[in-house]
Amino acid sequence: MIIVLDPGIRQAEREALEAHLAGRGVAHRREPGPRGDVLVVTANPSGLTPEQLESLPGVARALPSATEFVHASREMHPAGSVIHVGGVTAGGGEFLLAAGPCAVEGPGQMEACATAVAAAGGKILRGGSFKPRTSPYSFQGLGREGLEIHRGAADRHGLLMMSEVLDREDLPMVAEFADILQVGSRNMQNFPLLKALGGIRKPVLLKRGLAATREEFLLAAEYILSGGNSDVILCERGIRSFDPSLRNSLDLASVVLLKEMTHLPVLVDPSHATGQSRLVLPMARAAAVSGADGLLLEVHPDPAGALSDGPQAILPEDLIRLSADLRALVPVVGRTFGAP
Amino acid sequence: MIIVLDPGIRQAEREALEAHLAGRGVAHRREPGPRGDVLVVTANPSGLTPEQLESLPGVARALPSATEFVHASREMHPAGSVIHVGGVTAGGGEFLLAAGPCAVEGPGQMEACATAVAAAGGKILRGGSFKPRTSPYSFQGLGREGLEIHRGAADRHGLLMMSEVLDREDLPMVAEFADILQVGSRNMQNFPLLKALGGIRKPVLLKRGLAATREEFLLAAEYILSGGNSDVILCERGIRSFDPSLRNSLDLASVVLLKEMTHLPVLVDPSHATGQSRLVLPMARAAAVSGADGLLLEVHPDPAGALSDGPQAILPEDLIRLSADLRALVPVVGRTFGAP
Amino acid sequence: MIIVLDPGIRQAEREALEAHLAGRGVAHRREPGPRGDVLVVTANPSGLTPEQLESLPGVARALPSATEFVHASREMHPAGSVIHVGGVTAGGGEFLLAAGPCAVEGPGQMEACATAVAAAGGKILRGGSFKPRTSPYSFQGLGREGLEIHRGAADRHGLLMMSEVLDREDLPMVAEFADILQVGSRNMQNFPLLKALGGIRKPVLLKRGLAATREEFLLAAEYILSGGNSDVILCERGIRSFDPSLRNSLDLASVVLLKEMTHLPVLVDPSHATGQSRLVLPMARAAAVSGADGLLLEVHPDPAGALSDGPQAILPEDLIRLSADLRALVPVVGRTFGAP
Amino acid sequence: MIIVLDPGIRQAEREALEAHLAGRGVAHRREPGPRGDVLVVTANPSGLTPEQLESLPGVARALPSATEFVHASREMHPAGSVIHVGGVTAGGGEFLLAAGPCAVEGPGQMEACATAVAAAGGKILRGGSFKPRTSPYSFQGLGREGLEIHRGAADRHGLLMMSEVLDREDLPMVAEFADILQVGSRNMQNFPLLKALGGIRKPVLLKRGLAATREEFLLAAEYILSGGNSDVILCERGIRSFDPSLRNSLDLASVVLLKEMTHLPVLVDPSHATGQSRLVLPMARAAAVSGADGLLLEVHPDPAGALSDGPQAILPEDLIRLSADLRALVPVVGRTFGAP
Repeated sequence: MIIVLDPGIRQAEREALEAHLAGRGVAHRREPGPRGDVLVVTANPSGLTPEQLESLPGVARALPSATEFVHASREMHPAGSVIHVGGVTAGGGEFLLAAGPCAVEGPGQMEACATAVAAAGGKILRGGSFKPRTSPYSFQGLGREGLEIHRGAADRHGLLMMSEVLDREDLPMVAEFADILQVGSRNMQNFPLLKALGGIRKPVLLKRGLAATREEFLLAAEYILSGGNSDVILCERGIRSFDPSLRNSLDLASVVLLKEMTHLPVLVDPSHATGQSRLVLPMARAAAVSGADGLLLEVHPDPAGALSDGPQAILPEDLIRLSADLRALVPVVGRTFGAP
Repeated sequence: MIIVLDPGIRQAEREALEAHLAGRGVAHRREPGPRGDVLVVTANPSGLTPEQLESLPGVARALPSATEFVHASREMHPAGSVIHVGGVTAGGGEFLLAAGPCAVEGPGQMEACATAVAAAGGKILRGGSFKPRTSPYSFQGLGREGLEIHRGAADRHGLLMMSEVLDREDLPMVAEFADILQVGSRNMQNFPLLKALGGIRKPVLLKRGLAATREEFLLAAEYILSGGNSDVILCERGIRSFDPSLRNSLDLASVVLLKEMTHLPVLVDPSHATGQSRLVLPMARAAAVSGADGLLLEVHPDPAGALSDGPQAILPEDLIRLSADLRALVPVVGRTFGAP
Repeated sequence: MIIVLDPGIRQAEREALEAHLAGRGVAHRREPGPRGDVLVVTANPSGLTPEQLESLPGVARALPSATEFVHASREMHPAGSVIHVGGVTAGGGEFLLAAGPCAVEGPGQMEACATAVAAAGGKILRGGSFKPRTSPYSFQGLGREGLEIHRGAADRHGLLMMSEVLDREDLPMVAEFADILQVGSRNMQNFPLLKALGGIRKPVLLKRGLAATREEFLLAAEYILSGGNSDVILCERGIRSFDPSLRNSLDLASVVLLKEMTHLPVLVDPSHATGQSRLVLPMARAAAVSGADGLLLEVHPDPAGALSDGPQAILPEDLIRLSADLRALVPVVGRTFGAP
Repeated sequence: MIIVLDPGIRQAEREALEAHLAGRGVAHRREPGPRGDVLVVTANPSGLTPEQLESLPGVARALPSATEFVHASREMHPAGSVIHVGGVTAGGGEFLLAAGPCAVEGPGQMEACATAVAAAGGKILRGGSFKPRTSPYSFQGLGREGLEIHRGAADRHGLLMMSEVLDREDLPMVAEFADILQVGSRNMQNFPLLKALGGIRKPVLLKRGLAATREEFLLAAEYILSGGNSDVILCERGIRSFDPSLRNSLDLASVVLLKEMTHLPVLVDPSHATGQSRLVLPMARAAAVSGADGLLLEVHPDPAGALSDGPQAILPEDLIRLSADLRALVPVVGRTFGAP
């Protein structure tokens, strides 16, 4: 349970409240919330209900554990968050395009991708140098060399760099290069990593786990937010369904629900959500009119030769084509997508 | 296995082929396919492979059982089917809007719905008079009285009437009134009903079962098509996922896949696919740019008072608003949506 | 909502209660429940809560719609039901074995199966003469001829006959032959059929739909029970999961949950639940110690030559082997399994 | 692709083979396999097929990527592995019982649990001191203090100690205390952790991810095995299904399939698989006769007061009762469960 204090509570009132709680055996700790302090209840032996707690002076709200995502909740922060990074915004009226290859493979590939992303009006160049691969025998990423190549390509084209981090040991190295740190779906509940990300000063793109509920997703974000890093961007990337002919099933209604539940920006990754390049453009268009704040796409100059996830990568020319579609579509939902 | 004969096969060749198959113990029956006759193999004791069969004179293709939807397959009918009914087309370049209440409740409700549907540029008035309700204690539909009310409202507004049929015993009565017969997701594999629908001369809208694969869906359509009724319209309406906070999960990528697999028109029902009215418009917009041939929506003048599925019904004014969005969106995917 | 009346309510009290409800606009109908009459609420415009209704004289319980399975609920009938049919019991202490082929194919096959079932201590010979097949090109069953063969084999071996019915038109013919009528998972929500089964005097085995929740399953049973037929046997047969390498996923914990929720007997069908014969025996053993009241198995003298579902059929000798295991296992959970 | 070399290949032959591959552009690295060296193909630009590779001298098998779990595959190691640790075996004929609380909370709790585990014939005392909790506001574990308490309780009762490790930074500390290292389902694809576990000399219990296929599960094991640690024990702990009333769905047929696919021992965790204590015993019995090599259970002297996962913990007396059931059941499947 989380006790949200009245924003205007005075110190004497708060001390009286805490003494009263202690007298009923309610163990708690105080920590800063998005709009004033909250008390996180860690033991409640006499079973006080939210209603009982809300009747106490100085208590604005008592939230049950199902809505423990205090920092992530829209209720606690009704206006949507706009995250600023290097002149780019996520979550405002501007529709955000992030694209690049699944894995950084070499300078030529990254140059080709960065050229396409910039030409399409994209702002962020994605690409992994530490790859979470299902098989130990698959390409595992170029490591530091990849980060250097990635940084160079992003800088030459005026793009931000986004790169995945696999665990907290790798975090310092990736954070040295990247503007935005990506946490993949397999790591959505890598809690030591999430805690470490709460302590840094760079935005984090957090992808939904492939069988995670929205509550679990927002509680994962809460690990980062409650650690002090308020710049979290969420990303829907498909869930596992009973249907074996699709890699994943794009849960697009979830975007609408997430935007209700949280103030954080929500992107959609139609590449992982489908796993098949010819489905990417239709689902990218669909996402653009569903209320998402932007797209995360995989693009590759030579999908057939890609070292990772080639089947879901689109070509640079597809990205340009999509860019034109986005300019036509997003105004219908009150957003803008600028000329390249 | 299905053996597709060369379209130009002569009778003597066909008899020679059939004799050869009989000599190898291959039991089969001949039936008309979309482009000439096919042989449906019912026993293959010597295990002839598709490759072996395709090497025989007169055989164009041998299809394994996984693609037994001979009539439904796009491969057998590369151009998309356009279904004509009462001046309306499904599957052509015109985006089709069908809407109405879940259940027919009375004349006032149907008049209000029909007015809204016509004003929004819709062509079909949906509404159930035989309702498949999870609980025996829920409203089960008005039966014949509902069909009469429905017919009247559709006629007054120049709309087609679409109504659900629950089993073959009810089929004659529903077919007496409706222009298009709807088969709900719970009945997708009601095979006696599907066979009966194969024998009538009215279009059928077939909804995907809530845990059906696309192969099962197309084989259900095949029951109708192989019975002689070629006017089948498919409808995606959400699949059951692990996520308890959504009634269903809208599988929008499936629309693209279905359009590849089959020549039949594909509509999307975002009302059942989400179960929550505030998700309907975003998902309707998403469907409109995903490649779907149209929408099936639930609208009700008083959702809170609806006898069935009120929480997912949108208001008449929402339908009008969506109509404007559709006019802006569908040209991006090469379709039209006419002025009301 | 369902209002359960006090069992000892007098007529005058009941009339006073009904008048009071009418005065508040509560529309309802009275019908017999398992322990006295219940009032099924069909409209509640002033939003009376269960608590308010339970405070009225003569009301024992007011149940929200989520537990509308009045007749099926264990709460309304705490002792488990024991269903008697032709000297056989389902739901008592005796573990019940039902087995036979998926489809009736001919006299020799049925004789071989019946011999095996009887030798293994089975009491019921299953087999379908009307088959719900995914593809219209698959074997659809022998119809009346199959029913006759089935009846003969059952009678010669002192077994009960259980056969599937696909829709209400076929019901009279199947009921003419079979002792127990089976409703398959695809038909779990064929409501006209369920209503028709409520009006006959033979036990019904109802299989869980492949993506049905337990609530939906029990509400389907409620259609039969509320129609007046109290002899319903439930059957778990696997649910559809994300895992493509299994036909279905056996939800064995569901047996325990169902036995808590309902007084009806619960069998397990490990053949459909796995789809692979070598998984059937391990899962049959697991079911036997999980609290299930019995097993439903597919057996075939020649699985490779079976016209339907051969891959999941076990051999007669496997059935005998399982029989020995059952005798060792079921006493651990307080049941008996008699010598053949 | 994996090229399995003939066990008896001579060095000159192997060099000739590698030179031939290099001439066709096939990049590869050599590494030790379970029965001699294998070549892991990392690039195959001319698209050599498995058949072509198997025709080369010195090649025993060429395995496509779908079966890349070379070390885990039963095909490569037909006899089941028996893992020995401190006098206890996993995977042999002795059925293994591991139990303990979800989280280590204090000395009294661990003493009570250890007493119960030893009395029930268990060999391993489980308990987490680093807890992966969905919410950042939940109890996160006692850390080193918990490990010390756990070690003491295990030693006093002659039990092995098994404890969860959350990421590679914590590994040295946990490995300092524990006999067996547990990787939880959320971490099944924490690849840096898996690689680190490949380099240590202690057995690892690896739990299946809640939406992982068996192939993904075995490839996760392959990360550990290919790193040089051959002592991996698998654990089924339930998968996420569409059913919201169960925390997870126990996929018991998966045990049989895993035992076919791999030589590694397979335990079942019915506590996490159900999330409800009253389902644990029935599912534990079911697992015991399904072919599993043992059980992993949560037990707690005071479930209502547990700091983590209380609802799924059984009482010490339940564990004793289960122990008696196991002694009666496992001989039916050819195993033994010794007296305490």
